[in-house]
Amino acid sequence: MKIGFVGLGIMGLPMAQNLKKAGHDILAPERASLKPEARADFTILPDATAVAAAAEVIIIMVPDTPDVEAALFGAGGVAAGLSAGKVVIDMSSISPTATKDFAARVAAKGCGYLDAPVSGGEVGAKNAALTIMIGGSQADFDRALPLFQAMGKNITLVGDTGAGQTCKVANQIIVALNIEAVAEALVFASKAGADPAKVRQALMGGFANSRILEVHAERMINRTFNPGFRINLHQKDLNLALQAAKELGVALPNTASAQQLFSAVAAKGGAALDHSAMVQALETLAAHEIKAG
Amino acid sequence: MKIGFVGLGIMGLPMAQNLKKAGHDILAPERASLKPEARADFTILPDATAVAAAAEVIIIMVPDTPDVEAALFGAGGVAAGLSAGKVVIDMSSISPTATKDFAARVAAKGCGYLDAPVSGGEVGAKNAALTIMIGGSQADFDRALPLFQAMGKNITLVGDTGAGQTCKVANQIIVALNIEAVAEALVFASKAGADPAKVRQALMGGFANSRILEVHAERMINRTFNPGFRINLHQKDLNLALQAAKELGVALPNTASAQQLFSAVAAKGGAALDHSAMVQALETLAAHEIKAG
Repeated sequence: MKIGFVGLGIMGLPMAQNLKKAGHDILAPERASLKPEARADFTILPDATAVAAAAEVIIIMVPDTPDVEAALFGAGGVAAGLSAGKVVIDMSSISPTATKDFAARVAAKGCGYLDAPVSGGEVGAKNAALTIMIGGSQADFDRALPLFQAMGKNITLVGDTGAGQTCKVANQIIVALNIEAVAEALVFASKAGADPAKVRQALMGGFANSRILEVHAERMINRTFNPGFRINLHQKDLNLALQAAKELGVALPNTASAQQLFSAVAAKGGAALDHSAMVQALETLAAHEIKAG
Repeated sequence: MKIGFVGLGIMGLPMAQNLKKAGHDILAPERASLKPEARADFTILPDATAVAAAAEVIIIMVPDTPDVEAALFGAGGVAAGLSAGKVVIDMSSISPTATKDFAARVAAKGCGYLDAPVSGGEVGAKNAALTIMIGGSQADFDRALPLFQAMGKNITLVGDTGAGQTCKVANQIIVALNIEAVAEALVFASKAGADPAKVRQALMGGFANSRILEVHAERMINRTFNPGFRINLHQKDLNLALQAAKELGVALPNTASAQQLFSAVAAKGGAALDHSAMVQALETLAAHEIKAG
């Protein structure tokens, strides 16, 4: 199948390479930033309009909501090249509400639309082991399933348009709050004189266990805060959560608190550290000195 | 071995029965509340002083810090029956700081002391599958290890006296905050129109996965809030966390927030519900109506 791929960055490039390995032809728009591997393996066309005109399915993998809007509807964008019967798959992590608007505008061209954000990071992208959370119609999902299977492992049609992005936001809420939970527990245990490595080991057998206790608690204990997943990206995702919560009339008190702790770490130069570095905000609070004047 | 057991309640009775099955003699103090099985299988002595005088190891399994103090140092308590060379094992979940005081007073009698709180609940107690987190000396731990192995599976010497209780508090912090995390995510997803059961399924393959997502999210989705682990017990444990945090100079912002959500549910009659019912506080906030006057 001819697949257009817009956004060949840290995530997009290995995802497109896995589609290529599965036997598909990859078409990508010209960018000054294209990596040599992309130029060698993929067909480069002048812009995303030309890509959409030539491809059957067009995948978008860019950082944020305005980037998806530009990729779809900006000058030389995907929408101008669409004709009836094609499918657009947005695998970026963006606003659930904006997604419904984008899908409606694509549907007006007679095309399908799937929101299909991922988790699993660069390692998951390279190993074709991404978790993919999908919103859209069953028919579009069935058509795209072989492509998803070339890029990921845990593939779920969550619901209608926007449900994939909603699910990804829910994922990022839980990941942030589980990091915060482990951080509170380990700072508490350390200050009480216990060895946090032994505490982690003891807790892994019970109800406190989580992927975050397995992976991120170890990072906190070993002080290895190279990403991983950067705090500034998680801040973007929690902004999506808090903005959508405001629109929906939902209170997310601990998500708001975790966002503030991320902000405290980012403000001191930690924005590019792994999100497990959130623990440093709690450590700072536990270590600070108060002066009388 | 002759083992004294003080506190044959929902947890203590099956734990003592598992020790009996492993070939030990169980001695217990007279109580009006003793179950018929306890009277049939164990040797009942007039009080805990007599139990401690006759046993080599004395296990305590009672609800809270004042109960342990009374069991040890109250009238007819364990301490009055101790002589050099015995070991006291407190398997209750109580204050880490009070534990250090109790251990010192027991050590003054020439006896060992282990704090060894558990997690895994009534099911874990019955199936000899408890997680046991232990503080104390290596020598006392080695001596008691066969007893722990008769009651539990994941057995860790975390550190010196108090480290077991500190670890248990850390466990209860993480469990409460992971419940809160899952609750925020599922309420958000529901209000955004996604099916929370499918969201849970999709998230279980990635970094958001946890024992709480597996077990407690399912309770939230199926609306099965029979305990399980009661909110009023978890409130007790978070009180221990917040009290110890104050003594240690540690800030636990999300633990405090989770405690308030438990309080909101308890105040409306939910104190005896499973702790996963915390979700109802967030649901109430999302559903409330504001009036102009």
